Amino acid sequence: MNPIKITIAGPRGRMGKEAVKLVEETEHFQLISMLDRKQPEKETTIPVFTNIEECFQSEKPDVLIDLTTPEVGYVHTKTALEYGVRPVVGTTGFTSVELEELKAISEEKQLGCIIAPNFAVGAVLMMKFSKMAAKYFEDVEILEMHHDQKLDAPSGTAVKTAEMIREQRNLKQQGHPNEKETIDGARGANIDGMHIHSIRLPGLVAHQQVMFGADGQALTIKHDSFHRGSFMSGVKVCVDTIMTLETLVYGLENILD
Amino acid sequence: MNPIKITIAGPRGRMGKEAVKLVEETEHFQLISMLDRKQPEKETTIPVFTNIEECFQSEKPDVLIDLTTPEVGYVHTKTALEYGVRPVVGTTGFTSVELEELKAISEEKQLGCIIAPNFAVGAVLMMKFSKMAAKYFEDVEILEMHHDQKLDAPSGTAVKTAEMIREQRNLKQQGHPNEKETIDGARGANIDGMHIHSIRLPGLVAHQQVMFGADGQALTIKHDSFHRGSFMSGVKVCVDTIMTLETLVYGLENILD
Amino acid sequence: MNPIKITIAGPRGRMGKEAVKLVEETEHFQLISMLDRKQPEKETTIPVFTNIEECFQSEKPDVLIDLTTPEVGYVHTKTALEYGVRPVVGTTGFTSVELEELKAISEEKQLGCIIAPNFAVGAVLMMKFSKMAAKYFEDVEILEMHHDQKLDAPSGTAVKTAEMIREQRNLKQQGHPNEKETIDGARGANIDGMHIHSIRLPGLVAHQQVMFGADGQALTIKHDSFHRGSFMSGVKVCVDTIMTLETLVYGLENILD
Amino acid sequence: MNPIKITIAGPRGRMGKEAVKLVEETEHFQLISMLDRKQPEKETTIPVFTNIEECFQSEKPDVLIDLTTPEVGYVHTKTALEYGVRPVVGTTGFTSVELEELKAISEEKQLGCIIAPNFAVGAVLMMKFSKMAAKYFEDVEILEMHHDQKLDAPSGTAVKTAEMIREQRNLKQQGHPNEKETIDGARGANIDGMHIHSIRLPGLVAHQQVMFGADGQALTIKHDSFHRGSFMSGVKVCVDTIMTLETLVYGLENILD
Repeated sequence: MNPIKITIAGPRGRMGKEAVKLVEETEHFQLISMLDRKQPEKETTIPVFTNIEECFQSEKPDVLIDLTTPEVGYVHTKTALEYGVRPVVGTTGFTSVELEELKAISEEKQLGCIIAPNFAVGAVLMMKFSKMAAKYFEDVEILEMHHDQKLDAPSGTAVKTAEMIREQRNLKQQGHPNEKETIDGARGANIDGMHIHSIRLPGLVAHQQVMFGADGQALTIKHDSFHRGSFMSGVKVCVDTIMTLETLVYGLENILD
Repeated sequence: MNPIKITIAGPRGRMGKEAVKLVEETEHFQLISMLDRKQPEKETTIPVFTNIEECFQSEKPDVLIDLTTPEVGYVHTKTALEYGVRPVVGTTGFTSVELEELKAISEEKQLGCIIAPNFAVGAVLMMKFSKMAAKYFEDVEILEMHHDQKLDAPSGTAVKTAEMIREQRNLKQQGHPNEKETIDGARGANIDGMHIHSIRLPGLVAHQQVMFGADGQALTIKHDSFHRGSFMSGVKVCVDTIMTLETLVYGLENILD
Repeated sequence: MNPIKITIAGPRGRMGKEAVKLVEETEHFQLISMLDRKQPEKETTIPVFTNIEECFQSEKPDVLIDLTTPEVGYVHTKTALEYGVRPVVGTTGFTSVELEELKAISEEKQLGCIIAPNFAVGAVLMMKFSKMAAKYFEDVEILEMHHDQKLDAPSGTAVKTAEMIREQRNLKQQGHPNEKETIDGARGANIDGMHIHSIRLPGLVAHQQVMFGADGQALTIKHDSFHRGSFMSGVKVCVDTIMTLETLVYGLENILD
Repeated sequence: MNPIKITIAGPRGRMGKEAVKLVEETEHFQLISMLDRKQPEKETTIPVFTNIEECFQSEKPDVLIDLTTPEVGYVHTKTALEYGVRPVVGTTGFTSVELEELKAISEEKQLGCIIAPNFAVGAVLMMKFSKMAAKYFEDVEILEMHHDQKLDAPSGTAVKTAEMIREQRNLKQQGHPNEKETIDGARGANIDGMHIHSIRLPGLVAHQQVMFGADGQALTIKHDSFHRGSFMSGVKVCVDTIMTLETLVYGLENILD
């Protein structure tokens, strides 16, 4: 089997560095070029381009892994599709209009394109399984636990999980109808009857626990992210899958089966 | 919607009592008769039969819930199918020859039939999700925790979970190739490279935790069974599903989607 | 060693029944009489009294286990001390004036007396260890999980735990100073800077988890109560300990060392 | 209050670097010198010595934090005591003869000296609480979880925990007397009737969970170590405590109360 030829955009960022490591360490992946805002100070063995067209004209990759910003990523994605390169893009920032447009190009060219807000396979499976479990368990509570430098509560992943569960279940206001908070906030944040609890402690990294309960039993699905290397398994799955796609897929959960 | 008419076989057993409660408490279920080895001492509002043919001749139910023994259950299942009654049977005891025969009758009559070794929806989802996760996580360890009156280790559910995961994954011997037990047994039971750990403590009931690990992350799926009422959610799903089936299904995991 | 002679008051209540079982099953305990509001319908092997003075005049026990109401319990405790009987009382309902008075009598008579709001040894150790840990960990969050029939949130045990931790630590407002709830209640109930989260799900019984975090580590102390038999270990410790006391002790945490 | 003057030996090692950071970030600590095998390549603001006597003659610290090897550490500890400097030493490598000798010097000089095999406060509290809980819970199982690069099983901390629990409890062979392993190793390693289970997965760091069970309840004490910064809280406690000691203390658990 020929290796999959890959270009990485944004190779110096936190995610980009991990992606370079991933591609170099995966036997059937081959890093052929990098896209960056500027040339590196030291010479590199892999060519670095600052212009995407020059990059693809030099040697066309099979896949572009884009870990830049939404603005740059949008241009990169469009250009890649035009050059016959399949884009794997890590971003939450595309508008629905942009996604529609990219999907149309992707299908016209019959080229795979993956846009993923979250590359952590474990986190995405947690959300997917939670949605599946919600079909059989009416009652659920979400606990998300992060380091105490996190500013917003609840976390984006917790809200996304609740939204995915909501698609599956009938509306239900959980807890006893007459339950009473003797101290405000005890029962957490309420999204359509589901409760989310945000724990913040120094020492923690990023953890989420989705708990389902029914008569005499509990089902718990938990994801722990200990460091950002955890995102790379998702990038790998995307690169492997995109070769067989002929449309745009949004969200890693729609790749994993 | 007309209620689903139900006969329960084995209504005085531990599981049977729970099933009677379930059917009585579910609005669209209607208990029309019971099958027992003997007539009750006190008169009951629901008729009790000791002969299955008389039972079905008196008033034909839509579904038979059978919670008796494998021997009796086999006869009941066959008779039910012949009378046009869909059987939901909780047993691990049917042979593959029996299952093949029942499947043939079920398909000939185009009548649903469900044989389930385990009715706990949460436990079955735990196994199903574990198999799915094994596609993306190469490494897994299984921890099962029970009260200290349990004689065998590991538990049947833990072994079944390992078998389901094995179907999905490439053979892998987990842990470091040079790892060394300084005290025998530390690394648990080894099934095809997967490790199972059996915890026994007074106070516990029945719990299992399947842990997957990869670079920088862990995904854990846990089921707690606190009392046997937990089995009834599975019986309910089976009764609801069987009305739309035209074949025999073995195992709750093949009903849940 | 002579067995410890015991009288149980309130033997037909939920706790009382468990206490009778405990005393009968413990080799060095001997049940010599019971105190009840009325005589039992069937004859019993252990004599039942409705008048406490007659009870102690008949045969004086070493210890009275009182599982009645606060009002009755107060009278029982006082009478027991006067008769030279050591009281083990499970109640949260005594006033501080009553406690002072009982303590004075207890010390004058040089007789042990134990008043315990919570007999679950595990729960009390959880609180005790949490207070100890708070000396070394500035940051703590409390998660309490109960069945969804519970009306009040947070639970009394969670509030008591926070109060015990507060005695130990310097006031600290936890979480990031600029943290923001995008949905109200996400960060739980706030007691003096500590956050309590109340999870409610059918299937759960009574569980609490106290989580401490610091740079690079977390320490978690968790108690699960699966059924009310869990209270009996505390009653046993109290009976064993009271024989060596010459004063009143309030709270099981002051017996356990 | 005057700051506590500190010398760090071994400042370039993994632990040493964290210690330098700790001392610099703690307001009432003052780093006055460092001891190293060689002079640094770049000039430093804090003087570095390669000879311990010159170091203490230049400016005498209150405390020496030694994070070198057992051989070097032994010489450093002895020299420090002779110079009136209190040593905080992180090592498992001293022999009992060496410890006896150092204790004698320490007491003669009436100078505190702390030798600690483990500086993680959370891990030491976990062991301490486990020993305390063992007084009230007869049954315990230990689960330790580490990354799959760890070679030995069970971990040193798990064995140490079992040893500490053993001091407290009566010998008990746990599990059912007739329990049977259908696959060898399922019940884990057996230390005096206690069972230890060693889980190994990529992604994990260092975790231990001590589970106690009794009628109707479970008490679980868990420690997670996410990175080695977790050790520094223990170093801080030692430095703060040593100023009030007049003898040698072995083990952080004897400092924490």
